[in-house]
Amino acid sequence: MGLVVQKYGGSSVADAEGIKRVARRIVDTKKAGHEVVVVVSAMGDTTDELIDLAEQVSPFPAGRELDMLLTSGERISMALLAMAIKTLGHEAQSFTGSQAGVITDSVHNKARIIDVTPGRIRAALDHGNIAIVAGFQGVSQDSKDITTLGRGGSDTTAVALAAALEAEVCEIYTDVDGVFTADPRVVKKARKIDWIAFDDMLELASSGSKVLLARCVEYARRYDMPIHVRSSFSGLTGTWVSNKQLTKPEGGESDMEQAIISGVAHDTSEAKVTVVGVPDKPGEAARIFRAVADAEINIDMVVQNVSAASTGLTDISFTAPKNEGRKAIEALERVQEGIGFESLRYDDQIGKISLVGAGMRSHPGVTATFFEALSASGVNIELISTSEIRISVVTRAEDVTAAVQAVHSAFGLDSENDEAVVYGGTGR
Amino acid sequence: MGLVVQKYGGSSVADAEGIKRVARRIVDTKKAGHEVVVVVSAMGDTTDELIDLAEQVSPFPAGRELDMLLTSGERISMALLAMAIKTLGHEAQSFTGSQAGVITDSVHNKARIIDVTPGRIRAALDHGNIAIVAGFQGVSQDSKDITTLGRGGSDTTAVALAAALEAEVCEIYTDVDGVFTADPRVVKKARKIDWIAFDDMLELASSGSKVLLARCVEYARRYDMPIHVRSSFSGLTGTWVSNKQLTKPEGGESDMEQAIISGVAHDTSEAKVTVVGVPDKPGEAARIFRAVADAEINIDMVVQNVSAASTGLTDISFTAPKNEGRKAIEALERVQEGIGFESLRYDDQIGKISLVGAGMRSHPGVTATFFEALSASGVNIELISTSEIRISVVTRAEDVTAAVQAVHSAFGLDSENDEAVVYGGTGR
Repeated sequence: MGLVVQKYGGSSVADAEGIKRVARRIVDTKKAGHEVVVVVSAMGDTTDELIDLAEQVSPFPAGRELDMLLTSGERISMALLAMAIKTLGHEAQSFTGSQAGVITDSVHNKARIIDVTPGRIRAALDHGNIAIVAGFQGVSQDSKDITTLGRGGSDTTAVALAAALEAEVCEIYTDVDGVFTADPRVVKKARKIDWIAFDDMLELASSGSKVLLARCVEYARRYDMPIHVRSSFSGLTGTWVSNKQLTKPEGGESDMEQAIISGVAHDTSEAKVTVVGVPDKPGEAARIFRAVADAEINIDMVVQNVSAASTGLTDISFTAPKNEGRKAIEALERVQEGIGFESLRYDDQIGKISLVGAGMRSHPGVTATFFEALSASGVNIELISTSEIRISVVTRAEDVTAAVQAVHSAFGLDSENDEAVVYGGTGR
Repeated sequence: MGLVVQKYGGSSVADAEGIKRVARRIVDTKKAGHEVVVVVSAMGDTTDELIDLAEQVSPFPAGRELDMLLTSGERISMALLAMAIKTLGHEAQSFTGSQAGVITDSVHNKARIIDVTPGRIRAALDHGNIAIVAGFQGVSQDSKDITTLGRGGSDTTAVALAAALEAEVCEIYTDVDGVFTADPRVVKKARKIDWIAFDDMLELASSGSKVLLARCVEYARRYDMPIHVRSSFSGLTGTWVSNKQLTKPEGGESDMEQAIISGVAHDTSEAKVTVVGVPDKPGEAARIFRAVADAEINIDMVVQNVSAASTGLTDISFTAPKNEGRKAIEALERVQEGIGFESLRYDDQIGKISLVGAGMRSHPGVTATFFEALSASGVNIELISTSEIRISVVTRAEDVTAAVQAVHSAFGLDSENDEAVVYGGTGR
């Protein structure tokens, strides 16, 4: 029985009842003989309420002070959780990110972890205690200021602590039963995935699956730390994310076979920017994306087609979060004269559908089936981008639901059909 | 223009508007050329709400975790205040008790300050910044755990920081205009005191005046740190508390004369315990008060009269906070057989009225006037206790208002009468 790191999100600890339920689950894990480290987020909507307060006193809250403010949220939930565990007769101690040794850089509001020195956590465990750690926060190496890790920060805290403490597993508790082959709100027949490789999970996360964020999966992959995504409500086995399959497929034999397709993700949070009439000569794309990068905009898909021979001009499109769209357009307008492109087009009524699975590129049939499914449901494709284990297309936003359902069915992922579509001889 | 420490209580920063108003006052002080350190309490009822949450998850919240929980309150207010100041174009940084160097013992929920090492605060000031510090909290020297200072903790933080930083003055901002000659809710004609000596303020605080707590005044007296108690709403000059009178009496000459009587305090938060029929021999009182002390009950007045010659038995009475009354009775019942007293009486329908002023004992007329005033208003006296600068009596709770008003008038403290009563030749 080894060390288990458990992470509980804000919806799991939204009120006193939730905190008591989580406390019972933690104590059960301890009673089963594990050492337990718990990473906890702020209660329910606390973080949003604090941001709202900040905006009432300041139109542009200073980063250092915003971090000081927001970190009070986990301080509340972790102290309450430790109290609730003690009430159940077990010893628990809560630790801030700083006390837990989560050392970060100095970029407030989206700091990156640069070291984890969990000496106090190890000591608490050695004394037989359960350690409760504030997610989402750390302390900067240089200035010793409080920092926050930004979006998905608590999951990353959990994985980072699990790696530093050489835990057996990092359990991420959430309000769904695990990772699904598609968003169950869109595809009623979506199936829970029992196991998924880090690479595939990374692609799903980057493509719009919200259960785990890419950052946390990247960290886990780097340290080979298995993640178990599961529900804090149901107690069922959820989805294992790891390098090799650790669990038996439910109801099947442990034959190490796997369906080639992991799932279908979609994302309607992005907008498409097209730079029209770019002179087709070396260095132009670089200048465009340097301008975008300098404005600190995270771009996603990038597509450039061959230039028309008659004009020597080409179009370059990329997608980026809608809330950064205005910034992107402004950044590009500033360099328009220097680069000499013709115009900019902005479109935020788009959606992205991605199919993720291992070995996709070596099985041409996957791509064909994907496009056929979209075509049969009348969905027009605007952009296409592929990686070794992913195909993504951009469509009209209103077509996303139909597109996801069509692709999910075409690849045999619907739950009443246990046969996953197999390409080549590697699957069953 | 020296360094000023300002402390703002929860009612001054209860909402975004309050925080912005306080920010403007701080910036005004900075603009006047001062270095400014601000100590802030949690917003409005935050602390009570957090305690309520704790009680929902645990009937007896663990001290360490309760401190971790409660300290999130100041973290919110101080970060918001720093943001609001930055919005006004001035640099501000917030610091937790730990970051500010407030080192305490390890007694959770009522830690005592044992050292203050404000290196980071000094550095922030040297960079021209305004420093915002969380009141009420510190870090334990031994375990590096977060502690809270208990009741009145933020005032004590402010005075302790002011002393460590060798500030010119510690300004305590509150929702009243200063310290009054009596509680203005009870005595309409109560006057604001322009200046009061530490010793007199200590007696007033111990006798029920709620503007400053005794603990903070004791700290200020030890380090000779002048306190200016004033309103965060009106901006008027308030009450100076110091060893020597720093300000000119309002509308008068600086003749260093002072009214001998500082004010009348009252307190209805205590109960009276009488130990009846105690054998009148050496050591009995010690055994009684050891039992009470071991139960960690703070006793206030202690009165023992001469024993009746016929029985050799005496009665011992003391007052203690009502909410500790039950504990006191239980502690005494456990030692009743050993000590051999007859019975216990408990009475929580009492009130205490105290007259505070310098040199009282050397002016017998003070005591006489005090008792005459009570008698004339029909108030019966149950216990009497005196010190060098204070006379206190216990009466029925329902007589307190009349008693305070009668004494206040008798000593010429009413505001339409500018002549304070003078005994001997030291006052005017």
